Amino acid sequence: MDAEIITIGDELLIGQVINTNAAWMAERLNEAGIAVKQISVVSDTEAEISRILADAFGRSGLILMTGGLGPTRDDVTKLALCHYFQTGMVLNEEVLEDVRALFSRRNYPLTHLNQQQAMVPANATVIRNPNGTAPGLWFEQDGHICIAMPGVPFEMKAMVDDQIIPELKRRRKDQYILHRTVLTQGLGESFLSEIISGWEDRLPPFISLAYLPSPGVVRLRMSAKGPDEAALKEALEEEEQKLRSLIPQYIWGYDRDTLEEVVGRLLTDKGLSLSTAESCTGGFLAHKITSVPGSSAYFKGSIIAYANELKRRFLWVDEKILEKHGTVSREVVEIMALHGCQVMSSDFCIATSGIAGPSGGSPEKPVGTVWIAVAFREQVTSKLLHLGDQRDRNITRATLAALALLRELITQL
Amino acid sequence: MDAEIITIGDELLIGQVINTNAAWMAERLNEAGIAVKQISVVSDTEAEISRILADAFGRSGLILMTGGLGPTRDDVTKLALCHYFQTGMVLNEEVLEDVRALFSRRNYPLTHLNQQQAMVPANATVIRNPNGTAPGLWFEQDGHICIAMPGVPFEMKAMVDDQIIPELKRRRKDQYILHRTVLTQGLGESFLSEIISGWEDRLPPFISLAYLPSPGVVRLRMSAKGPDEAALKEALEEEEQKLRSLIPQYIWGYDRDTLEEVVGRLLTDKGLSLSTAESCTGGFLAHKITSVPGSSAYFKGSIIAYANELKRRFLWVDEKILEKHGTVSREVVEIMALHGCQVMSSDFCIATSGIAGPSGGSPEKPVGTVWIAVAFREQVTSKLLHLGDQRDRNITRATLAALALLRELITQL
Repeated sequence: MDAEIITIGDELLIGQVINTNAAWMAERLNEAGIAVKQISVVSDTEAEISRILADAFGRSGLILMTGGLGPTRDDVTKLALCHYFQTGMVLNEEVLEDVRALFSRRNYPLTHLNQQQAMVPANATVIRNPNGTAPGLWFEQDGHICIAMPGVPFEMKAMVDDQIIPELKRRRKDQYILHRTVLTQGLGESFLSEIISGWEDRLPPFISLAYLPSPGVVRLRMSAKGPDEAALKEALEEEEQKLRSLIPQYIWGYDRDTLEEVVGRLLTDKGLSLSTAESCTGGFLAHKITSVPGSSAYFKGSIIAYANELKRRFLWVDEKILEKHGTVSREVVEIMALHGCQVMSSDFCIATSGIAGPSGGSPEKPVGTVWIAVAFREQVTSKLLHLGDQRDRNITRATLAALALLRELITQL
Repeated sequence: MDAEIITIGDELLIGQVINTNAAWMAERLNEAGIAVKQISVVSDTEAEISRILADAFGRSGLILMTGGLGPTRDDVTKLALCHYFQTGMVLNEEVLEDVRALFSRRNYPLTHLNQQQAMVPANATVIRNPNGTAPGLWFEQDGHICIAMPGVPFEMKAMVDDQIIPELKRRRKDQYILHRTVLTQGLGESFLSEIISGWEDRLPPFISLAYLPSPGVVRLRMSAKGPDEAALKEALEEEEQKLRSLIPQYIWGYDRDTLEEVVGRLLTDKGLSLSTAESCTGGFLAHKITSVPGSSAYFKGSIIAYANELKRRFLWVDEKILEKHGTVSREVVEIMALHGCQVMSSDFCIATSGIAGPSGGSPEKPVGTVWIAVAFREQVTSKLLHLGDQRDRNITRATLAALALLRELITQL
């Protein structure tokens, strides 16, 4: 059974709100083995809702809709559903009771508008909403299912998790979709593709591969589809092993891992501490590291030495070295990392120095020239990056590259 | 002309990625006076892309598509477009040159796969991509326009802002929509509304006002609609002046201004310098400040003193004060800010200390308790924030509040 998601709301069409509901529902359906064929966003008008409903119900076995079920005049989903399923509205006593109970719990007076919420299309099965006034509505026709829910995220999520997915699973005749995402770093999409194309060609027909590139990272997602969950799991594991043997040095994690989490786990396991000494990344490296809950256990802190005087004062970078090699140089970044370990009493220190742009470049050191270094006590490893000309992207890519270098070095200990 | 947005990618249909591209494009189209009728997400298959393309092109005058233009095998948008627009692929020399130049700038060898990017549908006009290898493709048929772009956000965004929106605007004759957004801080939505309601009531009928609240900031967006662009511009300017005279002290910027840019301009104008001494914000404050091009002119750097030993060593916070008042206290954050000015030789220093969560809270100082301070040489101002229980949100809100406090203090000089 293919599914479609329809989210209704002008706030989505003017870009004021990002459609996180759709992504959340898609994830839940996929986890339940139901593939999502299409996600659509349309306006809060009866005409538009009727149009998209007719389109979607014609082609897909399951429709999940959100939005337009509130009590105000601009919420017209119920009317559109009544027309489409050729039915009228009836009072549902259970829902009325739920609405009354909710209002008395909150000590609010019950208005006529709210009582209206208990009027539901006669041929829908009601999905009760413990967190709000609008119930969900489950329609079935010709073996197809259409479920309408309110757009308030936590109301919708509770209905999906506690009532809808369990019921859909009970009905499903065994089709599973499993995913495994391999996270790589250090090779662009096209280079990776050349190395792994032989493996890709020999993938079993029920496993498909997608390349998902983002700055500095390429995710490889395998999706396996079939009736035997255990067999799919095994096949994914087998293919993952083959893939790993082809590009072991480029793989740093799986599925929802982030580099900063992976590095954090490695440091925790080995009981080692970290600091950063940043110039061009300007604190983004420290921010990434400290975005991980519990990072205070291994992260000491950072010297953001944007001005050279701070490089001298806090990281003891000699004036003569700055003059001789320039701020953006192997020599300077290595000293920053080595001294960083000392002054912040950490086992590792990551240092960055580069030209993030848009200005500050020169013919020898154009914008995008970045040196990164990682010191482990008295040893240091450094690397030169040639990035692009966009400041924010350069900061992101330098940060990812620095975390990747750190990860590599920790795993070599 | 109604528009539709089609975003292509299985990663969206399985909920791995949230559709921020669609929201961004919707916002830009709306700002240009083009209403978005539908947003659709479909799979990376030729059949699905062809289906949605036929549906959308039939009902809307403008289609913006993203995704599926990469060099790997799973990217099939170009094939689908060739079939739909009944054309074949030809080599585009300009694109080949762009791809070559990009690879040589990055010192990467040019693979066969990348050269393929220069093969484009014969009847498409190429939109050159300065940030990547896949060009945009602009099709026109029967007065309808279909524009396909890569899904990489910064590549897509540059094409939309620099090439597509300007061209669409050139072609519009009938109706202009101009926006002017006034950014305010320091007053809640309802208080603002009370002060400006008289002005709001007297707005000309072709100007509408929207309140757009977000944590700590209320944006007031005026939208003017009509056939005479110059008259709209003039009316918006006039109304903005009236508004400014009502709430001069609460306005900190316009349109897409960010607090870090505004602060940067103020510091530059007054020839003053800045540093940060961060604990709970963990570098995010420094990152925000250094995300502004040219920030090295006024930003000295930062001490991220995550561990208390670094607060003592670099910011001279006395052990006894830490013991007596705790790390998260007015006393500690004020000392961090005052000493930060001294040790980093800056005019201003912002300091933060708090419990970002999810752990580390106590009954007296629950998660979300954050102290911020701004020192100007020997003077210091501090503020206690009671934020929520989400780590990332707490870091963001503390950072915004700190920048807002700094802005207020600079403007009072």
